[in-house]
Amino acid sequence: MKVEPLQGFSPQIGLLVSQMNYARKTTRQAVEGLTIADLDFLPSQDGNSIGALLLHIAAVEKGFQIEIFDGRTPSEQEMLEWGAAYSLGEKGREGIRGHPLEYYLSKLEEVRERTLEELSQRTDDWLYEDRMWDHHSSNNYFIWFHVMEDEINHRGQMRMVRKMLFKE
Amino acid sequence: MKVEPLQGFSPQIGLLVSQMNYARKTTRQAVEGLTIADLDFLPSQDGNSIGALLLHIAAVEKGFQIEIFDGRTPSEQEMLEWGAAYSLGEKGREGIRGHPLEYYLSKLEEVRERTLEELSQRTDDWLYEDRMWDHHSSNNYFIWFHVMEDEINHRGQMRMVRKMLFKE
Repeated sequence: MKVEPLQGFSPQIGLLVSQMNYARKTTRQAVEGLTIADLDFLPSQDGNSIGALLLHIAAVEKGFQIEIFDGRTPSEQEMLEWGAAYSLGEKGREGIRGHPLEYYLSKLEEVRERTLEELSQRTDDWLYEDRMWDHHSSNNYFIWFHVMEDEINHRGQMRMVRKMLFKE
Repeated sequence: MKVEPLQGFSPQIGLLVSQMNYARKTTRQAVEGLTIADLDFLPSQDGNSIGALLLHIAAVEKGFQIEIFDGRTPSEQEMLEWGAAYSLGEKGREGIRGHPLEYYLSKLEEVRERTLEELSQRTDDWLYEDRMWDHHSSNNYFIWFHVMEDEINHRGQMRMVRKMLFKE
């Protein structure tokens, strides 16, 4: 595994995408072979299941697609589809369960496909364009770094929950 | 917060360091105000305390400094000092406890200081130099990305343990 420019992307975007690809590979490894019961397991009463965390990763990426690529806020339909996964917590515990691993993986893939398509059409200059993030001055580079680092954060949690599952 | 070149570093290294700085800021936020008892708390019988995770983050970075900057394997003395934190698990649970937050933060800072000093002396070309990682073909860029992504992974776990602590 190297961090390096990737064919099909401007040099700096390729460096970022090679890191996003690595992060995604490790996310998939963290959930390999999990059953529906494993994916629904709650590590604590107010914790998040691995299934909810997986859908959250897709929801965060979807949210930034809408904000950055479409330049708008989510529609009611999108809020309905992604809101529970985006906010996690109680909504996630109630609304996200009973799905097999393939369900989550295909959501992740579907969302990622658009991100890569959009990123492939942009130049390095775009990465440094100013962009607000969470009421702070930021840029596009940070936003997509953040999408990746949020995924890695939750991968750490999924590894911890997985370890609890297989000790029981 | 932006991902952007930083004064004192070659352009590409600055981009990486700005991401490492952000990750470190969020690590510190995740542990803000924790007491010795909080830092020693085990989320499960075979889990890792926040204290052990903090020292692990420093140990991983220290390990790569020795490998990459010094071009050698750790000495016996270094293994003794950092081994438990590096491997976590039982050794970590036995050996890492009773320290106040400042202990962990100063270890993190001490190690990071050298990383920044070393990185400030290197060129972008160095980032792309080949380097083995975990028996795979890799490069320096990936190694230091990995140091950061391992920190983010454990930050996710620390946030989860912190949440368990303050619900009890």
